[in-house]
Amino acid sequence: MRRLLISEVLLNGEVTDVVIAGDRFESVGQTPEGEFDEVIACRGRMAIVPPFYNAHTHAAMTLLRGYADDVELAEWLTDHIWPAEAQLTSEDIYAGSRIAILEMIKSGTVFFNDMYWDQPATARAADELGVRAAIGLLYLSGPDGATNPRSARSNAALLEMAPDLPSRIQITEAPHSVYTVPEAGLRAAAESAAQSGRLLHIHVSETSKENADCLAQTGRSPVAYLDDLGVIGPHSILAHCVHLSDADRDILVARDAVIAHLPTSNMKLCSGQFDHAAARAAGLHLTLGTDGASSNNSLSMLTEMKLASLSAKIRSGSPTDARDHEVYAMATIAGAQAFGIDAGEIAVGRLADALLIDLDQPSLVADHNLESNLVYAADSSVIDTVICDGKVLMSGRRVPGEEEILEQGRAAAARIRARR
Amino acid sequence: MRRLLISEVLLNGEVTDVVIAGDRFESVGQTPEGEFDEVIACRGRMAIVPPFYNAHTHAAMTLLRGYADDVELAEWLTDHIWPAEAQLTSEDIYAGSRIAILEMIKSGTVFFNDMYWDQPATARAADELGVRAAIGLLYLSGPDGATNPRSARSNAALLEMAPDLPSRIQITEAPHSVYTVPEAGLRAAAESAAQSGRLLHIHVSETSKENADCLAQTGRSPVAYLDDLGVIGPHSILAHCVHLSDADRDILVARDAVIAHLPTSNMKLCSGQFDHAAARAAGLHLTLGTDGASSNNSLSMLTEMKLASLSAKIRSGSPTDARDHEVYAMATIAGAQAFGIDAGEIAVGRLADALLIDLDQPSLVADHNLESNLVYAADSSVIDTVICDGKVLMSGRRVPGEEEILEQGRAAAARIRARR
Repeated sequence: MRRLLISEVLLNGEVTDVVIAGDRFESVGQTPEGEFDEVIACRGRMAIVPPFYNAHTHAAMTLLRGYADDVELAEWLTDHIWPAEAQLTSEDIYAGSRIAILEMIKSGTVFFNDMYWDQPATARAADELGVRAAIGLLYLSGPDGATNPRSARSNAALLEMAPDLPSRIQITEAPHSVYTVPEAGLRAAAESAAQSGRLLHIHVSETSKENADCLAQTGRSPVAYLDDLGVIGPHSILAHCVHLSDADRDILVARDAVIAHLPTSNMKLCSGQFDHAAARAAGLHLTLGTDGASSNNSLSMLTEMKLASLSAKIRSGSPTDARDHEVYAMATIAGAQAFGIDAGEIAVGRLADALLIDLDQPSLVADHNLESNLVYAADSSVIDTVICDGKVLMSGRRVPGEEEILEQGRAAAARIRARR
Repeated sequence: MRRLLISEVLLNGEVTDVVIAGDRFESVGQTPEGEFDEVIACRGRMAIVPPFYNAHTHAAMTLLRGYADDVELAEWLTDHIWPAEAQLTSEDIYAGSRIAILEMIKSGTVFFNDMYWDQPATARAADELGVRAAIGLLYLSGPDGATNPRSARSNAALLEMAPDLPSRIQITEAPHSVYTVPEAGLRAAAESAAQSGRLLHIHVSETSKENADCLAQTGRSPVAYLDDLGVIGPHSILAHCVHLSDADRDILVARDAVIAHLPTSNMKLCSGQFDHAAARAAGLHLTLGTDGASSNNSLSMLTEMKLASLSAKIRSGSPTDARDHEVYAMATIAGAQAFGIDAGEIAVGRLADALLIDLDQPSLVADHNLESNLVYAADSSVIDTVICDGKVLMSGRRVPGEEEILEQGRAAAARIRARR
């Protein structure tokens, strides 16, 4: 089995050695024995920390980054995003997914939970670039309730390629939302998740309009309605959850559901402010995500951790809410656990996902508290090396093939502008 | 006169050449003639944009970055920040200022407006590292109203070194706030500013407690009180201004005063949310700053632009507030103008301050809108080259001497921990 030695690396403030054998940590904090296929000599100038797990994305939407900003949500969707999306080809989706994955690697993220069209293109990009991913089987209907033919086609193609995908890429059931999937579709997704053992990924209570419409149509909140349909459980990843009542939170706690909190997107689109303090007090399972690049517009989980803390503080008025170590855990181990990935901490036996942080960066000085510095002060420039599943994806901030990925991404963006 | 050619650089989307002669732009958008002492060949892979002007800092507080986070403001100051600050030496302040300036250069900032103790150490650091700065003569009194002896000493030392400072470093009158400077001191600062032609820099209406106390003691809001003392004018830079009434805004507009908006610090300390929409509607002169690294904890104006936009949007509930080009102008030309710096745009005759942006970065793809990408998606890793006053301060992300600056900063941080 291939063995990688990371020597003289800072782990929780102590200089030590870490060994990866195959896809797992073999030793942590001990002087190791034996031969090594590869050595990364950190000389005490790098720290090893867990990488980030992005709990909700639309990866290929990097293609629409900066395409339309600072407009009302309805106008943004109807006049800009939907018309552009309708014309995206599989080649575009592949190019956009690769840009997203490159950006995620460069900012320390090794996993993303995706919901979009033409999923085989995104799954292929994740496979080739070596990251972990959860790719959704999309349930989406038109106003007439009929299943979107494009999602049906690409779901079939994703299932066809599934046996060939590595174990680091999982498939989820992904009904888009209560307002785009009829009751039968939501029930079908829940049943399919139960039978297959797949996770279920859905947008829930993103806007107050979604809540009001759901109440008018079903007599219930989106959470209560989805719970009655069997959608809510420990297998369900609920994106946004901005507008929850106490009763909604009680349901989510009782079902041990997972919330994907997306602070930047919620702020930029003015969807509302997630009540972090109430979610914590209720004991909810919180993870963190960036949403797509067209509503954030960054995929950096470093920025997202800072925004999670700041948005919680201004929501409650208390600077003691959403402390650095809490949002760091949301972005790392809580995310890994939610998706059944045996990773998220630097510990013997865990899957070997890690970042090497270049400590010779001014944003990490003073060096009183690395966790605080990563949450509040650092940006992607401090991340030197990214390791996923025991393999080095980035070293010295270089990802193999990045020039071609950028070139293809720009070409896809130019095609989108030409179609406008 | 020394001439620098920046060839095949993107300016507003067009590939062109830019020439700097001495400290100013000689030609922009034309094929230049003559000999050059230095050529930066961009080959169409870099864009030239204005750099950032940070309107309010306490630079040396990088020493306290991550020293105490996520605590209540009063506890933060009384139990953590003030005891540590009381023991800072000039050597510490110099080391902390150099860390701050290094971080600012690396994130594209060429000017900072500072208020702190031991100012000669900060002025020397700015002089040596080549950036622009405004350094305040600090007015600060104890509860007994007596002038703080440390500020008196360091003010005298700053005035003594002033004739030897380059023109890119200016001195301001810097009364700390209405709650730390008695009326006589505020009047003296205003008179000194009027006589010397210096700008006046003060914290105003940061917290609701400051407003309530000022009302109880003077019968007026901080803005109205300061206006009656002659403090408010086109020469005054007012940091925070979180809690303004319509009447306060009328005064600030009538006096053409400048607001230094500090969104991250206000959010992290839960001081309140600046009413950006009201400030814009009133026609106020808005600039942007990071505050000190102990309450932000980053000095990146890239992050600050994003936070300025997001905080404005959630304050008003409208995603159309604080658009990308508006916050970009706040961080660049509006900041330069407020401090009398003839810079902030890439234009013939202006002082030659500029950034070269490395376009081969995933956060800048799709490339529909560079300004949006810089405000919402980019971090410091996209900044390749920083030019200030016609001189290259950073090239290829390397600043000369950075290892020693980091080493000294860590040594100062260790001294602070040892004194705890």
